[in-house]
Amino acid sequence: MSRYAIGLDYGTNSCRSLLVDLDTGEELGSVVFPYPSGELGILTDPSDPNVARQNPQDYVEGLETIIRGALDEASGKREGFDPAEVIGIGIDTTGSTIIPVDEDGTPLAMKPEFSDNLNAHVWLWKDHTAHDEAAKITETASRERPQYLAKCGGIYSSEWWWSKIWRCKNTDPEVFAAAHSWVEHCDWLPALITGTDKPEATGRSICAAGHKAMYCEEWGGLPDREFLSLLAPELADLRDRLYEKAVPSDQKAGGLTAEWAERLGLKEGTAVAIGAFDAHMGAVGAGVKAGTLVKILGTSTCDITVLPNDADLEDVPGVCGVVDGSVLPGHYGIEAGQSAVGDIFLWFVNNLVPDSYGATQDEKFVEMEKRLAPLKPGETGLLSLDWNNGNRTVLVDVRLTGLLLGQTLHTEAHEIYRALIEATAFGALTIINRMEEHGVKINEVVNTGGLAVKNSTLMQIYADILGRPLKVAASDQTCAMGAAIFGAVSSGEVKLEEIQANVCRMRDVTYTPIPSNQAVYAEIYSLYKTMHDAFGTAGFEGQLDQVMKELISIRQRARA
Amino acid sequence: MSRYAIGLDYGTNSCRSLLVDLDTGEELGSVVFPYPSGELGILTDPSDPNVARQNPQDYVEGLETIIRGALDEASGKREGFDPAEVIGIGIDTTGSTIIPVDEDGTPLAMKPEFSDNLNAHVWLWKDHTAHDEAAKITETASRERPQYLAKCGGIYSSEWWWSKIWRCKNTDPEVFAAAHSWVEHCDWLPALITGTDKPEATGRSICAAGHKAMYCEEWGGLPDREFLSLLAPELADLRDRLYEKAVPSDQKAGGLTAEWAERLGLKEGTAVAIGAFDAHMGAVGAGVKAGTLVKILGTSTCDITVLPNDADLEDVPGVCGVVDGSVLPGHYGIEAGQSAVGDIFLWFVNNLVPDSYGATQDEKFVEMEKRLAPLKPGETGLLSLDWNNGNRTVLVDVRLTGLLLGQTLHTEAHEIYRALIEATAFGALTIINRMEEHGVKINEVVNTGGLAVKNSTLMQIYADILGRPLKVAASDQTCAMGAAIFGAVSSGEVKLEEIQANVCRMRDVTYTPIPSNQAVYAEIYSLYKTMHDAFGTAGFEGQLDQVMKELISIRQRARA
Repeated sequence: MSRYAIGLDYGTNSCRSLLVDLDTGEELGSVVFPYPSGELGILTDPSDPNVARQNPQDYVEGLETIIRGALDEASGKREGFDPAEVIGIGIDTTGSTIIPVDEDGTPLAMKPEFSDNLNAHVWLWKDHTAHDEAAKITETASRERPQYLAKCGGIYSSEWWWSKIWRCKNTDPEVFAAAHSWVEHCDWLPALITGTDKPEATGRSICAAGHKAMYCEEWGGLPDREFLSLLAPELADLRDRLYEKAVPSDQKAGGLTAEWAERLGLKEGTAVAIGAFDAHMGAVGAGVKAGTLVKILGTSTCDITVLPNDADLEDVPGVCGVVDGSVLPGHYGIEAGQSAVGDIFLWFVNNLVPDSYGATQDEKFVEMEKRLAPLKPGETGLLSLDWNNGNRTVLVDVRLTGLLLGQTLHTEAHEIYRALIEATAFGALTIINRMEEHGVKINEVVNTGGLAVKNSTLMQIYADILGRPLKVAASDQTCAMGAAIFGAVSSGEVKLEEIQANVCRMRDVTYTPIPSNQAVYAEIYSLYKTMHDAFGTAGFEGQLDQVMKELISIRQRARA
Repeated sequence: MSRYAIGLDYGTNSCRSLLVDLDTGEELGSVVFPYPSGELGILTDPSDPNVARQNPQDYVEGLETIIRGALDEASGKREGFDPAEVIGIGIDTTGSTIIPVDEDGTPLAMKPEFSDNLNAHVWLWKDHTAHDEAAKITETASRERPQYLAKCGGIYSSEWWWSKIWRCKNTDPEVFAAAHSWVEHCDWLPALITGTDKPEATGRSICAAGHKAMYCEEWGGLPDREFLSLLAPELADLRDRLYEKAVPSDQKAGGLTAEWAERLGLKEGTAVAIGAFDAHMGAVGAGVKAGTLVKILGTSTCDITVLPNDADLEDVPGVCGVVDGSVLPGHYGIEAGQSAVGDIFLWFVNNLVPDSYGATQDEKFVEMEKRLAPLKPGETGLLSLDWNNGNRTVLVDVRLTGLLLGQTLHTEAHEIYRALIEATAFGALTIINRMEEHGVKINEVVNTGGLAVKNSTLMQIYADILGRPLKVAASDQTCAMGAAIFGAVSSGEVKLEEIQANVCRMRDVTYTPIPSNQAVYAEIYSLYKTMHDAFGTAGFEGQLDQVMKELISIRQRARA
């Protein structure tokens, strides 16, 4: 008899399913559903570019399509496949992506009186309307509750829970008043299909609560009433209607209701795990464990590792998310990241690469990679910082920008592209070094995400700069894979470590550092670190007048 | 009766004439002759990109074409024009552009046995084969004769006289041995047409000698034998066959010989002035005088002013050329410059501007200017240094490179182009400030060269950044105009100031600083200066961690 689980990955523009054989790791079905509303699933407001909302109805429509689709594919692939052997469902989503709901847990946007009101819809993670509120929360917390800020890296973001809710109160009191409560997307979907009208009964996602809502057991869960009153008395009142307890995703949110079992073609009572954010489940799907760093390399990166929660964990300065249970139960989840990686490359190719490289974005990337791959480390003479979108880890500073130096009258676009790749790798090394300096030992690096899979030139540069062998997770869908793992584990029938060992496979290729490249990159990294500290930290005491000269010397050696 | 003069401007790829009415400034004839040899007049060596030579025969062929052509045009334009009323000829050339000659002053390249040998040809200013020799000259002089280096900004260049001659000795002893002497291009042409086999009789160009050959009356002219022996004994021997005296261009090299008068269609004995370099004569053609800075804005810039030679002139650190009489007789010529200005824009448009701006270089420039012109100062959030080709003034350092900071994920090519324009203007301001800090007062700025004439957006940005009204010389040919002025003056029939007043006209447009722009640029300049000092000087003690943040603040104000 086989055992299966289904993972659901709710992204920014679409959702997808993955149906996995829990013993072999075989991926038997996977279906994508692009959200039909708005532009690529996002509802915008022409008068304010900060607005990014979603229609909760899209999530529901997608649910049925992607689960039924995956079951159909599995039936086609494997004779005798029985949907009743699906033992659990796990769900990951973006976050903080939050939904105002009524007393029954129904999103306000699904009610006729609010169906046209964007503020009653889902406030997507990348909605930045609440920047003023975020600044005030940071200011108030730094004065009154510095411990709240310490857990999230010193700055509370406009993308997060309290900023958005407060923003709604300030700009649309009617919606705020109609909202009995607010729910993270990753809490709402499990509640919906398990009929858990009040998810607070089983608990909310510790991943969402801990990383976005300043939840921590140390101070009794959510921020205290007194603090919230300093922001707005209505937020203190809302606290009473929220939740007491947040738990990891190995816990069951509930069992599939008869109605949903019927709609989805699954067994009634099938375990549905507590939800979590995509990157966290992605790390689990890529095989994260103590000593393993999972890097999700996409438009931005997320770097995730864990440490047993009985270990002595120092504060890791600038590493913004350390939450007990947010990745694996019994472990501190340690989250870092770079605000832009693939996004920097996309910016560059779309804005600064002439058509002599190719007519389309893809052609330009291909031609640039062809021309940069044979270059030796240092041969471009360039050095770049990776701060076009600020620096999340380790500087936690959005008021930083890009920097490129070393260009001459002969510098070409593909050389700058190489320097940008190197800059993101130097940024990645800075994160690993910071973790290790504070007791979080990294023995293994596993990569996943589009860049890890598609860009072997980038991966070799990363290996040379990080100075470690780089593995690549076998699955193209590590987020959904992690969700499937939690779905299975929440059933209580299987152990997490066992399932991870079964399904978290690596690709054949491992990128191994080339010692001569490593040596040159070590020199260039010390220049990167000098620039990083000079522009990113206060009180820098070094000198910069040798930076350009050393790059010229390194270039001369590389060309000789 | 009218008075005319002819100026000849020998550039890198062509030579041109200008026939001027000395009383009205009217330009009656101007003909261009592209050098027929090599590629755009330059002889190269595929095995060494540093080689740049010219064929002296091109200069001679051009001479007849451009003078006769100008006389024809003048006859067509003005009834009764009489070539006998041309009272003088002046010649400017590039430099150090030097020619090995035999005992008769004939270039070796014109002799059959050397006609195929590139080393026997003209060593063009931008020939960079002598970089090793230049480094050794700098090293030896800094140890043994620091005063030699002080006059040329601390570093002796591979483009200059002694480097090139020594290089020839080291790599082609046969040519070196066959060369009785060496002559600057600007000394050879006047000697040729005045039959002055030995130009040392009347003197050589103080402009060339003082700026390129370490000539100074302070130490008795050329570098002493002992110093040259430290380089190579053969150079000390050569010194004896060179010249004793170098003089300004108001002096006559001689009168046109009967043979050349016949060939050129001019009167025998017509005065021919001592030659000088193009930028120096260009400054005179644009009306340079004490208190007036002439900026020649092209691929690079040359900034020239003068100070009466009875004034107390301090050393102006980093201002590389201060030579008595090199621009105007009786004045110190003070030369500064930026190693790349237009060249930075050309590099950018050719390498980093997508075809969405246009299909050709010209279209891209036009579209970028259209899009950057309406931007407010600071609106790009960008800050750039102008060091893609090193920094000539005030840092005198070729081992510097470009730098751009402030880029986000939304930065577009035209915004970077604007930042590059601003960077070159900040570099220009740094030069003016340095001069004024050391007693060289600038009351007026006159601009000439392609960028000054064609790019009104750039000129307004320059006015806002320099904080001064910017005039533009009327003539498109200020170098040839300056040569014509000296041709006339060398006849002894007219005074320099009188002719300058007659012929150095300004265009109607003057670019006036806009106070609100000036204020913002003053803030950004202080950030530029911080970056300039941090990367370009030793012992910088400031902090850089506010640079990006201040640019963001300025950008926010500009957009508000």
